[in-house]
Amino acid sequence: RYLHFCKLPGRVMGIRLLHFTSVVIIVLLLVAGALTALLPNIKDDKMPNLRREPKTQSQSALDSFTLIMQTYNRTDLLLKLLNHYQAIPHLHKVIVVWNNVGEKIPEETWNSLGPHPVPVVFKVQTVNRMRNRLQNFPELETKAVLMMDDDTLVSAHDLAFAFSVWQQFPEHIVGFVPRKHISTPSGVYSYGSFELQNPGFGNGDQYSMVLIGAAFFHSGYLEDFQRQPEAVYTLIDETQNCDDIAMNFLVAKHTGKPSGVFVKPVDIRNLEKDTNSGYSGMWHRAEHLLQRSYCVNKLVNIYDGMPLKYSNIMIAQFGFPNYANHKNKM
Amino acid sequence: RYLHFCKLPGRVMGIRLLHFTSVVIIVLLLVAGALTALLPNIKDDKMPNLRREPKTQSQSALDSFTLIMQTYNRTDLLLKLLNHYQAIPHLHKVIVVWNNVGEKIPEETWNSLGPHPVPVVFKVQTVNRMRNRLQNFPELETKAVLMMDDDTLVSAHDLAFAFSVWQQFPEHIVGFVPRKHISTPSGVYSYGSFELQNPGFGNGDQYSMVLIGAAFFHSGYLEDFQRQPEAVYTLIDETQNCDDIAMNFLVAKHTGKPSGVFVKPVDIRNLEKDTNSGYSGMWHRAEHLLQRSYCVNKLVNIYDGMPLKYSNIMIAQFGFPNYANHKNKM
Repeated sequence: RYLHFCKLPGRVMGIRLLHFTSVVIIVLLLVAGALTALLPNIKDDKMPNLRREPKTQSQSALDSFTLIMQTYNRTDLLLKLLNHYQAIPHLHKVIVVWNNVGEKIPEETWNSLGPHPVPVVFKVQTVNRMRNRLQNFPELETKAVLMMDDDTLVSAHDLAFAFSVWQQFPEHIVGFVPRKHISTPSGVYSYGSFELQNPGFGNGDQYSMVLIGAAFFHSGYLEDFQRQPEAVYTLIDETQNCDDIAMNFLVAKHTGKPSGVFVKPVDIRNLEKDTNSGYSGMWHRAEHLLQRSYCVNKLVNIYDGMPLKYSNIMIAQFGFPNYANHKNKM
Repeated sequence: RYLHFCKLPGRVMGIRLLHFTSVVIIVLLLVAGALTALLPNIKDDKMPNLRREPKTQSQSALDSFTLIMQTYNRTDLLLKLLNHYQAIPHLHKVIVVWNNVGEKIPEETWNSLGPHPVPVVFKVQTVNRMRNRLQNFPELETKAVLMMDDDTLVSAHDLAFAFSVWQQFPEHIVGFVPRKHISTPSGVYSYGSFELQNPGFGNGDQYSMVLIGAAFFHSGYLEDFQRQPEAVYTLIDETQNCDDIAMNFLVAKHTGKPSGVFVKPVDIRNLEKDTNSGYSGMWHRAEHLLQRSYCVNKLVNIYDGMPLKYSNIMIAQFGFPNYANHKNKM
């Protein structure tokens, strides 16, 4: 009895200790919740993909970009473009996505004509797929990716300026080719360019996509692309098209902002006619544009909504090409 | 003894309770510290001055701006400009800073020609000072301020677009007139425009200031201006100049970024010659530009460093005025 009586307060104490410990734990949990709720906001707004970058990066890798160029049936043009691009400022490495399945890469020619300013890696593909260029390549060491179609030439000046713009807008696709979707009364979306206009939108134009065939974007988005619904890959593979539209959906979803920032190019050229293969790009196919409208509507279904947002911002370099372009001289 | 013995665990329990309570308190303190350390970062980066805005704001006040126009010796021009500007989109209120000391405000004429779309407040000044326009006016209810010189006309389209740009860059001065400083080998700074170039800067041009005589900026910066070193006010008053340079120093110091974002105007006009007063602006004075270089060097001494940073970004509206301006048609 005596002992029993005296143990009582002990038990009470035990219960109270338990009670206080749980208070501490609950507080810590709430707090952890609050903190993690705050932190992503900062990251998401500033550098969306930094946290998904385990690679430790050299200083040069931080202030430079990797050129990713997919090539098919235009090796002569590829070699020309490699010569053009291999000396542009801030270029860290070139990754050539070799879609000429079963065909030998031009490594011998390339090496016999060395030395070259930056390493060029040929990534031999087993299937000729549009989305091969959207892999998260292990050779990719920079945060910045410059993706170029294998028939497009952009001046070193435009690239240097666009890269400096990307460094200020790292969560966006910063590029030279804007496009847009418009919604029609039937609720069906249509894909196009300056020939389309949303009803009642007044002065000027808008864009809701920036094509990745001539653009800078964050390498983290290549990681994100690996985690998309299977239906997205099927859509891209069955059309051999729209991988760039899908990337704009992905970025718009990630940021909640317009996916792209349009930089007005001073000198951009299509070299397609320079190839001896006579091969002309997929976009010449009669169904190309209809396919892209089709893709926009499909992607809206897959992602259960339209994430694309409109922008009307066009960025050009101040004082270039003429020092007086801040006067009304356009 | 028996009682005494039985009280013992009680005391022990008391001590442990005390211990656990203090744990909870310390945890909460650490956490509060962590949270407050995080929160300002977000604000500083996004909306630098929101926290300095006690005024509760109507929805219209959030999506609109206040036009602040300082006038001296050009009442005829003022009335013309008021008619031009009183109907521009998103205009919430007009504040006229009346520097015609001792002269009657044109309230009668104004009211006799009503009704007017938005309220116009005449702020009668007792001294004719350049910096009168940089007061934190109690009538100011919007976050956005549009400051215009009393001889400058900018198209409604340019203003609507620039306002939409400011909403995306609220911590910057978003305006139509870029200027820059350059450093000379002697370490002396010089003030100018496109005629000056930093040695070895290569293609294009840069700016480090956007003049507030035709610009949007955050009303919080008017509050900041009231807290500057006395020497700044003295400099502005003795030169009757450079208040706009001082504002660029202030914003650059606050953001650690370029103070301004330059929006390329499509239609901006100087109406100075339209005044019957024959009065021509201060900037016609022979010493005007030399004074401004003088001010830059003075401000560097006052603020103990050069906060101004360069930008080469020029923003124009996509697809305006011609739909094909994303091609190389400049």
